[in-house]
Amino acid sequence: MISVNEKGLAIIDEMLDWEEDVKIESKVLENGATIIDCGVNTEGGYDAGMYLSRICLADLAEISYTKVDLDGLAVPAIQVATDHPTIACMASQYAGWRIAVGDYFGMGSGPARALGLKPKELYEKIGYKDDADAAVLVMESDKLPNEEIVEYIAKHCSVEPQNVYIAVAPTSSIAGSVQISARVVETGIHKLESIGFDINTIRSGFGVAPIAPIVGDDTKCMGSTNDCIIYCGETYYTVEHGDEEKLEDFVKKAPSSTSRDFGKPFYTTFKEAGFDFFKVDAGMFAPAKITINDLKSKKSFTSGRINPGILLESFGVKNV
Amino acid sequence: MISVNEKGLAIIDEMLDWEEDVKIESKVLENGATIIDCGVNTEGGYDAGMYLSRICLADLAEISYTKVDLDGLAVPAIQVATDHPTIACMASQYAGWRIAVGDYFGMGSGPARALGLKPKELYEKIGYKDDADAAVLVMESDKLPNEEIVEYIAKHCSVEPQNVYIAVAPTSSIAGSVQISARVVETGIHKLESIGFDINTIRSGFGVAPIAPIVGDDTKCMGSTNDCIIYCGETYYTVEHGDEEKLEDFVKKAPSSTSRDFGKPFYTTFKEAGFDFFKVDAGMFAPAKITINDLKSKKSFTSGRINPGILLESFGVKNV
Amino acid sequence: MISVNEKGLAIIDEMLDWEEDVKIESKVLENGATIIDCGVNTEGGYDAGMYLSRICLADLAEISYTKVDLDGLAVPAIQVATDHPTIACMASQYAGWRIAVGDYFGMGSGPARALGLKPKELYEKIGYKDDADAAVLVMESDKLPNEEIVEYIAKHCSVEPQNVYIAVAPTSSIAGSVQISARVVETGIHKLESIGFDINTIRSGFGVAPIAPIVGDDTKCMGSTNDCIIYCGETYYTVEHGDEEKLEDFVKKAPSSTSRDFGKPFYTTFKEAGFDFFKVDAGMFAPAKITINDLKSKKSFTSGRINPGILLESFGVKNV
Repeated sequence: MISVNEKGLAIIDEMLDWEEDVKIESKVLENGATIIDCGVNTEGGYDAGMYLSRICLADLAEISYTKVDLDGLAVPAIQVATDHPTIACMASQYAGWRIAVGDYFGMGSGPARALGLKPKELYEKIGYKDDADAAVLVMESDKLPNEEIVEYIAKHCSVEPQNVYIAVAPTSSIAGSVQISARVVETGIHKLESIGFDINTIRSGFGVAPIAPIVGDDTKCMGSTNDCIIYCGETYYTVEHGDEEKLEDFVKKAPSSTSRDFGKPFYTTFKEAGFDFFKVDAGMFAPAKITINDLKSKKSFTSGRINPGILLESFGVKNV
Repeated sequence: MISVNEKGLAIIDEMLDWEEDVKIESKVLENGATIIDCGVNTEGGYDAGMYLSRICLADLAEISYTKVDLDGLAVPAIQVATDHPTIACMASQYAGWRIAVGDYFGMGSGPARALGLKPKELYEKIGYKDDADAAVLVMESDKLPNEEIVEYIAKHCSVEPQNVYIAVAPTSSIAGSVQISARVVETGIHKLESIGFDINTIRSGFGVAPIAPIVGDDTKCMGSTNDCIIYCGETYYTVEHGDEEKLEDFVKKAPSSTSRDFGKPFYTTFKEAGFDFFKVDAGMFAPAKITINDLKSKKSFTSGRINPGILLESFGVKNV
Repeated sequence: MISVNEKGLAIIDEMLDWEEDVKIESKVLENGATIIDCGVNTEGGYDAGMYLSRICLADLAEISYTKVDLDGLAVPAIQVATDHPTIACMASQYAGWRIAVGDYFGMGSGPARALGLKPKELYEKIGYKDDADAAVLVMESDKLPNEEIVEYIAKHCSVEPQNVYIAVAPTSSIAGSVQISARVVETGIHKLESIGFDINTIRSGFGVAPIAPIVGDDTKCMGSTNDCIIYCGETYYTVEHGDEEKLEDFVKKAPSSTSRDFGKPFYTTFKEAGFDFFKVDAGMFAPAKITINDLKSKKSFTSGRINPGILLESFGVKNV
């Protein structure tokens, strides 16, 4: 079985060789853990975001830059193609580990989750667990983790602190923007899972999403980065399902446009909900467009539509 | 002179290192030949298709995923760029070796053809032959070849059976879809050759074609994969020709739209012809769009048009 | 500090390993300098152009082929993404060294400029200089440099002649076309600098530009290659500026459309100016479209528009 943490560790090694080029900085904590700053106190950038995305996807996807045209505005975008959608996206990339220790807060994603089994039910469902000696985690946070956070992570992952590697970037950073847009294929799988689709039938995933500019603080950037997927994320999956009718229904329910909150920038929705996540319709977190080709029934279904206008509103780009 | 089989062998080596990641399986037959299953009894996938495409093109092209928009439907596509169009596409990639031994049938393409000189006239025309000790073949087939097939291939290629490497994928598989769309540049060269153009004047080739979903059995998939090139394949060549007038005429005659059978999914045409290849207009097998820049006359000509509507009909994607 | 010449030398080494594949030829002059012919007496091609582009950008950018659609005509294009815009584009790529010795003429660009400090004020402004022992230069010229040219370059770069590496391609060659389009991000930075913008605030650059066909002699090709950037070059930068109002004004003034000469193929403008560069508005040399995201004010501005029609006129592609 592929070890997502071993894959992640190989990328970490590469990053450590190219710190100056990638505009990142690593340090070794007293307990031996390695922290790689990709945008907290460093500049970071697109390449740092690419590395974070590769770690998140455990290098089980082909990731590349591309261009997306938003009603005439050319913006950089990210393209993801994977033959291991469940392991790459769900066992690794999904931001399923909320880490709050003391006054530290960050969303954990990437390989280490498959050691800590965060969340356990998901790993049971997909039948995957990793037993590597090293834990590789990506943290979306505006603070670098200290020894205490590392001990917490090491304990949950059953590894020694010196074998913990954490790469960190704030939501409000270029690297953060990149790694969030790289979640376009994952977001679709997660949405499908949430409406009852058996994600173990997914054989491949492909997707493209624009990369958000920095529009404000972390909360505002959470809005614009999510909008990249919600309003302009396009995905295409192959599955081995077999039930044509049910599949059609799943595809119909999958895209973001089915949400009651669809139609305005996410930040607006979040603000109207008093910045209370539980009042936002979770159905929003989905790509704008989902197409599925079923290898069993040989049928294909598509649903949703991209909406560059709302994304431009979210980006707030002024045409001068 | 570049050896296409040596190039192919280097890719085979890489594939054998990544079997689990690429979801393929290799086995060594009793006579020592290596068979790599990319979709017959394995899952295969996009990456397997990319490897098949790289073998076919003898690694003399830059291949990458991209996205194509079919009237609002985003589908994965493949982009090919080569500075060795004649060797990569004609001496290697072209599916010019029909292998039928006993009840085994498959279309052979890739480097081994340049040892077996299949077909001989083509190799004489382009003045290329390989004399490598190993034969690397890509087979489009729904069956894995056995020792008998290998002996047949080894004999025709004048190599020992243990130096034969065959990578196989059915038409009706993701890897199959990918490797067929990767023929977009080759299909244009082949069409140009068939209308009398001197393909030795071609200096580079560039092209993009969508990747077909699985729409049915091998025959149906033969239809949709070919339609990717026929209706949405776009190509761009540079040549050293010099005769402006003749070149204009060649470009005019090259795209698929000049065929009497243009205008409906290939499967429909094939069915109407009683599934008899000889009754289908060979002129159909061409990219939708061909542009040629002549380095001698400094002129450029373009002809043809893409037709996403027919391709969508061929794909049968239901908008729900 | 990153050494652009060391980066360039690593690419040179790679090129020398793949001469046949890349259709280039190297030779060592009597004084030990290495000259790599990428299109003067060799065919060169797209890959040679990619290598030239990588050298120019000191391998501090991600460069890839992509496709651009010009009113229905698909043409190959180049995409550039860099987290080191000032060093990659200005300290290295910018064609800032006019080399005219005896009857030899060529435009020098790439790493060696950072040794010779060509031009000095620019290097003072960006606070960069290289002190490598080897000088790597890209020459846009229709002639290969001889020993005398090498001595001249070696002297200005304070290196030994045997440590000089020069890769050459004419404007009127595929490799030349590619490396010029790869200047799309650089051209925008240069234009911003020329209107008073502090380019040290630029943190990343992204851009796409079509690759011109060969339309005639060097002068005509200078026109069509520049038109790729002027009429269809799209760029996107992130900066740390902070002054919203001033930034808006800079963006407004940056694209090519602000030039009095905008609106016709560059060759026409150049001809009307009696082929006198000093009579052409320097403001023309800019991408068609510029978007800037300011990491400080969190604002984004965009200006300009692409104009495929004029580029098609420049390319002279006949639809048959």
